[in-house]
Amino acid sequence: MISFHPPVRTLMGPGPSDVNPRILEAMSRPTIGHLDPEFIRLMDEIKELLQYAFKTRNALTLPVSAPGSAGMEAAFVNLLQRGDKVIVCQNGAFGGRMKENVERCGGVAVMVMDEWGSAIDLDKVEDALKANSDARVLAFVHAETSTGVRNDARALATLARKHDCMTIMDAVTSLGGIEVDADGWGVDVIYSGSQKCLSCVPGLSPITFSARAMDAIRNRSTRVQSWFLDMNLIMDYWGGSSKRSYHHTAPINALYALHEALMILQEESLERAWERHALHHQALVTGLEAMGLSMRVAPTHRLPQLNAVNVPEGVDEAGVRATLLQLYGLEIGAGLGSLAGKVWRIGLMGFGCNQKNVLFCLSALEDTLLSVGAPVTVGRSLSAARGYYTQQSV
Amino acid sequence: MISFHPPVRTLMGPGPSDVNPRILEAMSRPTIGHLDPEFIRLMDEIKELLQYAFKTRNALTLPVSAPGSAGMEAAFVNLLQRGDKVIVCQNGAFGGRMKENVERCGGVAVMVMDEWGSAIDLDKVEDALKANSDARVLAFVHAETSTGVRNDARALATLARKHDCMTIMDAVTSLGGIEVDADGWGVDVIYSGSQKCLSCVPGLSPITFSARAMDAIRNRSTRVQSWFLDMNLIMDYWGGSSKRSYHHTAPINALYALHEALMILQEESLERAWERHALHHQALVTGLEAMGLSMRVAPTHRLPQLNAVNVPEGVDEAGVRATLLQLYGLEIGAGLGSLAGKVWRIGLMGFGCNQKNVLFCLSALEDTLLSVGAPVTVGRSLSAARGYYTQQSV
Repeated sequence: MISFHPPVRTLMGPGPSDVNPRILEAMSRPTIGHLDPEFIRLMDEIKELLQYAFKTRNALTLPVSAPGSAGMEAAFVNLLQRGDKVIVCQNGAFGGRMKENVERCGGVAVMVMDEWGSAIDLDKVEDALKANSDARVLAFVHAETSTGVRNDARALATLARKHDCMTIMDAVTSLGGIEVDADGWGVDVIYSGSQKCLSCVPGLSPITFSARAMDAIRNRSTRVQSWFLDMNLIMDYWGGSSKRSYHHTAPINALYALHEALMILQEESLERAWERHALHHQALVTGLEAMGLSMRVAPTHRLPQLNAVNVPEGVDEAGVRATLLQLYGLEIGAGLGSLAGKVWRIGLMGFGCNQKNVLFCLSALEDTLLSVGAPVTVGRSLSAARGYYTQQSV
Repeated sequence: MISFHPPVRTLMGPGPSDVNPRILEAMSRPTIGHLDPEFIRLMDEIKELLQYAFKTRNALTLPVSAPGSAGMEAAFVNLLQRGDKVIVCQNGAFGGRMKENVERCGGVAVMVMDEWGSAIDLDKVEDALKANSDARVLAFVHAETSTGVRNDARALATLARKHDCMTIMDAVTSLGGIEVDADGWGVDVIYSGSQKCLSCVPGLSPITFSARAMDAIRNRSTRVQSWFLDMNLIMDYWGGSSKRSYHHTAPINALYALHEALMILQEESLERAWERHALHHQALVTGLEAMGLSMRVAPTHRLPQLNAVNVPEGVDEAGVRATLLQLYGLEIGAGLGSLAGKVWRIGLMGFGCNQKNVLFCLSALEDTLLSVGAPVTVGRSLSAARGYYTQQSV
């Protein structure tokens, strides 16, 4: 057996996204202990940087030591007790995973269903809130990675507050790519992932809890069903007190990486990062449409960082992805669930959201579609994207 | 804010241990996708290497995407259903954590208690098995990191089989340092950690399930309470079929690191790794005793990789550790629970288990103890350790 040397890829799927070399280098620095005073200082800085990224002053803001799906589970197991009713909005794969989490906590999920590719219908949510005045939590996905839809987080949080419900929001794909305003919107729990628009390595899940959520967790009448994710215990390690008590061994090197990734975000500033995502998204869409392709999601609800493109009639979508990977080293994503076989998902996330990647993806896709005889307009795509950049004075 | 550059440390505490630079370098290679065919090949190799490390042919052998405490939780949430009775042996901190896990799964824990620093009493375990013929599982810690005690895993597994109980074994600190023989001993679930004798970065928990455990998991009448740790779902991603279905985003770069760490173990061979741990442990003990210090645990039950040393009367144990850290960059561990303030824990794990570290630790400790006026024998320790090495023809 020999050491693993990964092939050279450009990651433009639903995540992980290409990791900034600065982050890989930071991660490879020597490991130190999880109770080392210098490591405690690093934890404090990570917390401050996460507060910036989430736009919050929440004291309980930290990275869960596991991937985004553990972050989702941390939100539900801490907030819910058996029998609690949760209104779950589902318009894609990750709303479905929320339902799984509610039920495995012994909660009752009231589903508000919308089509994959459409946004959550606010009227339906309000109806559900009215019909279920005993619901404790409203849960929704901000950026549906499975479809490329942006849901109206601010409006959903406002509705929940009006009906005296707490909120759990999935920001795995939104954080760093579009605005997330924890305090401004008044969301109670938001979790994210390291490997999307933060362009860090996969394996961590930043999370933040409002004061109201913290109170609810502190005043539970039953224990959190997960020891590993119990915030009552994790607070003592990540909390503000000078005495940190050991809970579990933190993933030290991954946290070096997250610190570097969050520093890069702060150096650019949130606002400029959002603008950059919007710019390159628009250039990509311009190029794709000039090629004769169409987008799955209506313009008003499109995520810039996750672009669902309709697969042209008769084209073998998996074959196209395989060719892109083999010939160009380019990874794009397949459709999931009801969109399987129907769309490709092109990510423009964090470090990977740049002009070079947009132009590379357009040319590789055009060439590959031509090679399988797909009905594409030839030679228009790159100039259209370039034209868009010129128009925006980039 | 500036990039985090860790101070130079020698990690001789209870873990993380010093990471081999080969592993840090492997980890810093570019991230690829978790469904990339090359990554799937890496997963297959990791599985094979873990089977070697655990001495097993178990098909369900994989790293949980989170630290050892999540591995512990994975063992309990998958095997237990509400109301199940578990006999838990506790002779240190981690047996107590097992009790927490049983109860949070809705199980009933029957505790068999032994003193911190002593081994699990087999007679007491057999009595508990006889008195609780309805117990489904016997759970114990192989290498108690909190005390430095090695429990007799083979005998405990034999007892459990005799009484028709399944077994869950914590091998967080044992794997790679002393023998772990999953198939030979017939243990049903064994979990470990990446950051102890494998000398990998913290954040992963290798785990293995016997065919009997897999059957039990497949035939549960209720769902596993954790979605993130549900092996029924994880099997479809890590399993042997050619079609891998997405469960969660694997911590790609941490898995590069684990692959390298396991390759290093295989290159040395398990047997030589165990011999090396035994050798340097004995040299360390020889040196410590020549200094006038004493070990907490009886020779028959000592772990080579975790050495609990009694703090001499009147010495400020935390002050000594702080001096070692500040002056020598040397990290050793404090006592936990009933041993807090009474012992230091000196780790000799994996890459950090070597002659240089033994001699460095002895000299730094002797100097520091002298500086606080502790009653140590001066100038004997290093020559005694060197003498031991010579005697062993190293």
